[in-house]
Amino acid sequence: MAYKTKPKINAQRLGENFNALAEIGATVDGGVSRLALSNEDLEARAWLADQFERAGLVIQDDDAGNLSGLLRATDADARTLLIGSHLDTVPNGGLYDGSIGVLAGLEVARSIKEADVPLPFHLEIINFTDEEGCWQSLFGSRALTGTLKENYLRDTVTDFGPFRAALYRAGIRPSDIALARRNPEHLFGYLELHIEQSYWLDDANIDIGVVTGIVGRSSYAVGFFGEAAHSGTTRMSARRDALLGAADFVTRIHQIVRERHPEGVLNCGNITVKPGAFNMIPSEARVHVECRHPDRDELIQMQHTMEEAARDVAMQHQLSIDINLVGGMPTAVMAGQMVLAIEQACRTVGANAIRMTSFAGHDAQIMSNFTPSGLIFIPSVDGLSHSPREFTRWEDVLRGVDVLLETVLLLARDAKL
Amino acid sequence: MAYKTKPKINAQRLGENFNALAEIGATVDGGVSRLALSNEDLEARAWLADQFERAGLVIQDDDAGNLSGLLRATDADARTLLIGSHLDTVPNGGLYDGSIGVLAGLEVARSIKEADVPLPFHLEIINFTDEEGCWQSLFGSRALTGTLKENYLRDTVTDFGPFRAALYRAGIRPSDIALARRNPEHLFGYLELHIEQSYWLDDANIDIGVVTGIVGRSSYAVGFFGEAAHSGTTRMSARRDALLGAADFVTRIHQIVRERHPEGVLNCGNITVKPGAFNMIPSEARVHVECRHPDRDELIQMQHTMEEAARDVAMQHQLSIDINLVGGMPTAVMAGQMVLAIEQACRTVGANAIRMTSFAGHDAQIMSNFTPSGLIFIPSVDGLSHSPREFTRWEDVLRGVDVLLETVLLLARDAKL
Repeated sequence: MAYKTKPKINAQRLGENFNALAEIGATVDGGVSRLALSNEDLEARAWLADQFERAGLVIQDDDAGNLSGLLRATDADARTLLIGSHLDTVPNGGLYDGSIGVLAGLEVARSIKEADVPLPFHLEIINFTDEEGCWQSLFGSRALTGTLKENYLRDTVTDFGPFRAALYRAGIRPSDIALARRNPEHLFGYLELHIEQSYWLDDANIDIGVVTGIVGRSSYAVGFFGEAAHSGTTRMSARRDALLGAADFVTRIHQIVRERHPEGVLNCGNITVKPGAFNMIPSEARVHVECRHPDRDELIQMQHTMEEAARDVAMQHQLSIDINLVGGMPTAVMAGQMVLAIEQACRTVGANAIRMTSFAGHDAQIMSNFTPSGLIFIPSVDGLSHSPREFTRWEDVLRGVDVLLETVLLLARDAKL
Repeated sequence: MAYKTKPKINAQRLGENFNALAEIGATVDGGVSRLALSNEDLEARAWLADQFERAGLVIQDDDAGNLSGLLRATDADARTLLIGSHLDTVPNGGLYDGSIGVLAGLEVARSIKEADVPLPFHLEIINFTDEEGCWQSLFGSRALTGTLKENYLRDTVTDFGPFRAALYRAGIRPSDIALARRNPEHLFGYLELHIEQSYWLDDANIDIGVVTGIVGRSSYAVGFFGEAAHSGTTRMSARRDALLGAADFVTRIHQIVRERHPEGVLNCGNITVKPGAFNMIPSEARVHVECRHPDRDELIQMQHTMEEAARDVAMQHQLSIDINLVGGMPTAVMAGQMVLAIEQACRTVGANAIRMTSFAGHDAQIMSNFTPSGLIFIPSVDGLSHSPREFTRWEDVLRGVDVLLETVLLLARDAKL
């Protein structure tokens, strides 16, 4: 493809935007707090809308609060290529997680517009609402893909009051959220640039991770129930000690997962015990378990393994058991054409790249079941994330944005063929 | 010893008192809630003072709220034999724990007074404050023996505000508690009748347990400290998972104690975990551990075993560790002359008896280091206690009170010799 002017990202402008955004919700530790729908988050959106306007993009927002800047294709009926991520953060989070993806999209659209390159698709830069899950993780992308539960927010069990209030305050009517659903036929695909949040790239000194899949995840609350009794007067052999069972379960599943599912990861993040006194044998111990695996079938196998271990332990310790799936996300597969395009872009830009699995969730996970999606990782120094110490070298940021731009141009060229 | 009239307990009066007391703080489950210094506890004390008065005993209270009824010896300079227990209960506790001991003492004193038997010691029936530890376990007996810490209640770390307020409300000045300390030279000894709260007597169909010692107990907070990290992106082998370490510790010490200290009992009553999220590797897990052993030296050995296991686990899981002794009670030994007197009394009454160790704490544990003490157990059906289902057959109660009376008479006779 011959360009009048080859689009080129403006590193200085990108840097200025990065610094300006970092001030919104800045914390004393050098991090940033922009919890979804907070004043800081709303201020960041206003700032972004302003940037879209300056860039000459068409501003759009949908009924889930997703905010977009649109660069129109010549053909009004063209499909849309989305580039997205999120400006919301965890409390006292880092400057790169999410923000880099939105700023990169903005810069890519701007440089394409400035070079006056005609596109075969509309290019839409989108900031998704509440990726981090201050209220509901991946809320914006779930709404856009229509994967929120029907009558979400009308659940009578959970108290959605504060969330509803926060939505209203942000100008989002809870009853209209379903209207944010798009028609996948109108989409060309989805791209996201994100920091890796782990140390594989940094350790191996690789520039770009081309994500092929995002691990599936399932979260369980596993409750063990025995009998409370006085610890002094109840003989050891006659006890039905829920905590002892839970401890046995935790050590056992770690061992089993390491042996049978070396690619899987497991976490027991919490145990809560009742009655919880020094001299009372615990009658109740609830363990929070999370399983992740890059392979769909192996994740299911891993869940079976975990459930089987829980039942074995319960039987052995004479406990009752309650295994409750509290959340999950199926394994996501990135689209082959996107993986190939990103790899091609890396070669063009001169970045070394590896294919990899993401062990953290992203909007791309939701989008990938809806439209062909690609996810580009840049290195996180020491793998740190969700922390003010989160850091990515500026040259790595620029290289990532270059790859994103080149990917869009490649897709545009191929779409024309 | 020749009696004008042999003292004899009045079973009907004892039963009426039992029923009257059971109504104070009665719960819908058929249990009773008389938390120390609560309205119900204060009502029970007022009721007891009234009973002391009707029985013709001299009412006394001390600066720790211990309430006594005194039957004076002929010799004003005589020493005092205490018979004690407590009217306070755990929340929704049973009708027998503590109450039986106080009611038995009252009935013994009353029947001796009615029979007009001269005593070589003052006989003092004492209701100790807060045995159960609503505020401070064994508070009354600790105060009487002067074993509360110096400047207790002026600790600046713990908030004693609510306890101080409760004391004031009960007419106890916190600054005067130290005045409750007695001079052991003025004491003849201490006797207590209590339900066993375990199933050894009930299982073996034995009438009376003659307690020779009360297990020592030490309570630890064992903290394991690792590193919080994202559960998805941190490889299993690189983790410093505090909860995994704690779980390993819990399972391991249970195994070790069973193998090496078969007479000891161990309880892990609680674990608290931080940060406690599904997707965060725990950075902190604190385990509450309690060790008990009837043998002083073996208890110390058991503590070493536990500490060693904690350090091994910490090393293996690359965790830091903090072992904090938060409480304890040395093994208590009952006085030989009291054990013999109780056994003699059992023979006189025709009750079959065994010597045994108590695995629960009692005021006798505190008293035994202060004055020669004896502790008489009667069976608990199915070993249940601290529950509305706590139950002791009425014939077993009566037999226990007979043994207590006979023990007092034997001690009186021997003291005269």
